[in-house]
Amino acid sequence: MHIKRTETHNAWDRDLAPIAVIAPGDEITVETTDAGDGQLTPGSTAADVPGLDFSRINPVTGPFEIEGARPGDALVIDILDMSVGSWGWTACIPGFGLLTEEFPDPHLRVSTIADDRAELLPGLSVPVVPMIGTIGVAPPEPGPHSIVPPRRWGGNLDIRHIGPGARLVLPVGVDGALLSLGDAHAAMGDGEVCGTGVETDATVRLRIGLQRDAAPKTPVVETDPRTHRTGAALATTGVGPDLMVAAAEATRALITEIVNRTGLAAADAYLLASVAADLKISEVVDVPNWVVSAHLELAYLT
Amino acid sequence: MHIKRTETHNAWDRDLAPIAVIAPGDEITVETTDAGDGQLTPGSTAADVPGLDFSRINPVTGPFEIEGARPGDALVIDILDMSVGSWGWTACIPGFGLLTEEFPDPHLRVSTIADDRAELLPGLSVPVVPMIGTIGVAPPEPGPHSIVPPRRWGGNLDIRHIGPGARLVLPVGVDGALLSLGDAHAAMGDGEVCGTGVETDATVRLRIGLQRDAAPKTPVVETDPRTHRTGAALATTGVGPDLMVAAAEATRALITEIVNRTGLAAADAYLLASVAADLKISEVVDVPNWVVSAHLELAYLT
Repeated sequence: MHIKRTETHNAWDRDLAPIAVIAPGDEITVETTDAGDGQLTPGSTAADVPGLDFSRINPVTGPFEIEGARPGDALVIDILDMSVGSWGWTACIPGFGLLTEEFPDPHLRVSTIADDRAELLPGLSVPVVPMIGTIGVAPPEPGPHSIVPPRRWGGNLDIRHIGPGARLVLPVGVDGALLSLGDAHAAMGDGEVCGTGVETDATVRLRIGLQRDAAPKTPVVETDPRTHRTGAALATTGVGPDLMVAAAEATRALITEIVNRTGLAAADAYLLASVAADLKISEVVDVPNWVVSAHLELAYLT
Repeated sequence: MHIKRTETHNAWDRDLAPIAVIAPGDEITVETTDAGDGQLTPGSTAADVPGLDFSRINPVTGPFEIEGARPGDALVIDILDMSVGSWGWTACIPGFGLLTEEFPDPHLRVSTIADDRAELLPGLSVPVVPMIGTIGVAPPEPGPHSIVPPRRWGGNLDIRHIGPGARLVLPVGVDGALLSLGDAHAAMGDGEVCGTGVETDATVRLRIGLQRDAAPKTPVVETDPRTHRTGAALATTGVGPDLMVAAAEATRALITEIVNRTGLAAADAYLLASVAADLKISEVVDVPNWVVSAHLELAYLT
C-alpha cells in the first residue's frame, strides 16, 4: 500500500473518515508533505514567511484505520525506511520558538539535500538524520484538536529519534486508532529551539503492529544508534529554578558562542542550534536550581 | 601540587582562606572525598541513610586561589585525568530526588568498581564514566552559600560531561576565584533523577588557565566523546505544559518499563535510571505542550 502526500488533514479528530484500512502486521509506504504544505519553495525568502497560511501548517497524511485496534491497545510502529526530499527549509517564524523575543523578525534558510548532508548555509552542512516530527492517533475526546501541540496520543512530538530503525509505541484512544503522520525533518536537534528543523517532504515505510491492552501511558520509543551524535561538543548552560528559563538561557549562551566563534549572524546561529544542537537536562534534583545544557558538536565551530 | 581529600569545606564563601595558590597554567592533582564525606562504607545498608549528617554532605576540596584572577575573568579548567575509588554508593534519600513522593523510603546500593565497570546490583553493571559533580568558584555575594544548588558560578552542576578530556569555563566572581571541587561520580545519567550517581572518592588532575575579561554568563563545557552513549535505547516520554512535570512523567514511565522488562524492584530501577539514563528535552516549542524523553540503553533491559 502506497499513500500519496495529497491525502492530508490538519487537525486530530476521531470523526475523520479513514483514507485506508491497515491490518496489524502490514507494511505501508506513506508520502508526507513538508510542514509548510508546499507554501515555501527553494526560491522563497524571509519575506515569504509572514505570508504563510497557518491554517495549512503541519499537514499529516492519514488517518489510517488499524483493523481491530481498540482503546487501551498499544500501536507498535516500526519505521523501516525513510527518504527525504532534495531540499528543505528552516525558518524563524515570528511569535514561534524558544527565543521569540530575541528573534522577532522572520528568517529563512533553504537547504539543498544531497549525499546525506543538508546545506543549511553556504559551506555549512549538517548530516541528514531523517525523522518524523508528527505521528499520532486520534484523541478520544470528540471534535477537532490542534495539530500543533503533542499529546499523550502522540502527534507533534518532534522527538528526533523517531526515524529509520526506531520503533514507536502509542496508546490507542479510539476504535481503529486513526494513525496519521507528517512533518518530516532531514535534521533536528533535541529541543528544536527555533521551532523548525530542516523541514522537508518524505517517503516513509512503516510496519504497524498491535498489542492488545498494552497501551503505554505516554509514547515510548526504541531508538536507533544512528541518531547518536559522535563528536566532541560545546555545551552551554542555563542554571536556575525553572527548566524553561534554563533552556532559554542555555540556548541564548550557545548562540552567543556560535556567533563569537564563527561570525555567523545571530539568526543563523539560532537556526543552526535548532537543527544540530541538543538540549539535555543535566540535573533536576539539586534544589532549588536545575541545569539545562545545550550541546553542539565542536566541528561546527571551527 | 597534590592536595589531600581532607582539605574540604561545605559551603561557598568568599571569605574562606585558600588552602593553596595556583598560578595560571599550572597543573594540580586534587583528591576529593565522596558526597557523603565518608559516612557510608561498603558495608552500609539502607538503614544507614536516614542517619546521615546532612551538614557534612557534598564536601569540596579547596578553595584554591588562582593567582591574578579578577571578577569578570574566565577560569579555564582542563580535566586532564581522573581516577575513581574501588567502590561507590547510590541512594534514594527521603525528600530528595525527582520522584520523592513515589519513593519515600531510604534505599542504598553499594557498587564495586573494577575494570571500568561499577556493579550497581549483582550482575548489573554500568560503564565507569568518571565525572566531577561539584566544581565552582566563590560567589561575589558575602556570607556562606549552600553547597547543594548550582549557580552561575558553577558548584553542584552535576553535568555528567565534566570528566576526563573535558574543558570547563567558569566566570570568576571574586579576586583569586576560589575554586573548589568534589562530589565525584563513577557514573551518572543526565538528570541524576534519584539525586545520586555512583558516589565515590576520586583523584583529579587539572590544568587551570585564566582568560582576562572573558567570563561567560554561565558555565560552558567542551565535552569529550567518551561521554557519549553508543547503544540503541528505550526512550519514554512526558508530554505537557511544564518541563518539570514532563521530566517526572518520563522518568516514572521509564521505571515502569524497567520493572516490567527486567523484574527489578522499582527502587532499584529508579537508581539505575539515575546512573545510566539520560533526560533530553525533545521539543520545547510546540505550544503549549513540551516533550521530555528519558533514554536508557536497551542492553540494560534484556
